[in-house]
Amino acid sequence: MTRIGVLGTGMVGTTLASRFVELGHEVVMGSRTADNEAANAWAAGQGAGAGAGTFADAARHGEVVVNATAGAASLAALAAAGTDNLAGKVLIDVANPIAGYGPPVVLDPAGDDSLAERIQREFPGTRVVKALNTMTAAVMVRPESLPGQHDAFLAGDDPSAKASVQSLLVEMGWPAGCVRDVGGITAARGLEMYLVLWLSLATSLGRYDFNIRVVG
Amino acid sequence: MTRIGVLGTGMVGTTLASRFVELGHEVVMGSRTADNEAANAWAAGQGAGAGAGTFADAARHGEVVVNATAGAASLAALAAAGTDNLAGKVLIDVANPIAGYGPPVVLDPAGDDSLAERIQREFPGTRVVKALNTMTAAVMVRPESLPGQHDAFLAGDDPSAKASVQSLLVEMGWPAGCVRDVGGITAARGLEMYLVLWLSLATSLGRYDFNIRVVG
Repeated sequence: MTRIGVLGTGMVGTTLASRFVELGHEVVMGSRTADNEAANAWAAGQGAGAGAGTFADAARHGEVVVNATAGAASLAALAAAGTDNLAGKVLIDVANPIAGYGPPVVLDPAGDDSLAERIQREFPGTRVVKALNTMTAAVMVRPESLPGQHDAFLAGDDPSAKASVQSLLVEMGWPAGCVRDVGGITAARGLEMYLVLWLSLATSLGRYDFNIRVVG
Repeated sequence: MTRIGVLGTGMVGTTLASRFVELGHEVVMGSRTADNEAANAWAAGQGAGAGAGTFADAARHGEVVVNATAGAASLAALAAAGTDNLAGKVLIDVANPIAGYGPPVVLDPAGDDSLAERIQREFPGTRVVKALNTMTAAVMVRPESLPGQHDAFLAGDDPSAKASVQSLLVEMGWPAGCVRDVGGITAARGLEMYLVLWLSLATSLGRYDFNIRVVG
């Protein structure tokens, strides 16, 4: 059992938080205010093992903290979570740096920086791992919902943090061999920029329930 | 038989040009000067069906023109090729907008624009199709060199131009169902930004002979 703080009350945050509870973890969902309706409704619906609070409450609770806030709001949310509450923690950064929804979607930063790197620079005592931002929430938590093998990617500077995230992914059903370590935190650039191809694919397919597999 | 102009004498240009000759097309490889050693050596080694010349010679020759120059040099190369020589032509843009090799590689433009869009804006009478920039040259021309199915992507505003490019890819061995139209020319953003993930994967795999498949 791991104590997990999930920052963000959107589809990604609630999907991940519910799956973590289902797997037996103790989850606190955090938002800007303690009286957030979505977070409290989620916690009430989960029963034991689930709570709701501020970003700081969730970060304080978690041994692992998940950033599932909107990319443009992530640095502010993490500042509210608090440097001390995040110190030493594994932070799974699932956010994408969307600056405009377009279409076409606009990313910022892109090309020479990434949101994950900005977070790592702002919180040097936190062990940031970029993960799961390359697929829709339903696929994150139930990889078996797609036929055959497909891949999840990890980027981060701390090998033990990446190992912890891989373990969580394996618990969610990811075959260990499908969780690919693609490098240090700068490799988050590629994971974030892939979002734009992912959105093009989603538009051309007319659905979100797909992923990619590395072949060869 | 199609007359094809290939701009660029690097690995991508020579690999594509050789494969086009092998498939029976008439290819002129273009470079900045008519006495380029690499281009002339390539043409001499190919025999019938292959020639070398300036960017303008290659563009004038081609019904289809391939931009296989370095991304940072592409607009200058295409300017040298000449607006009139490119008018009405299908331009397959294989280049990536690498502004610095790092690591980590730096892309420019990224996030809110793409090289292919810049080319399309600069040459509105040319039918630009972004294609094949998402894999190493050997895989572009011999998709069967990897096990199982994997995908190539097309982005461009002109459906008939995309159909022409798909036909060329099918000739090179791509199953038609593995050539995915991901949208208009703005979708080139995702194809170009994917390069960064591709490079991270290449680094972690220790090789370039891989590709991705869309699953689901």
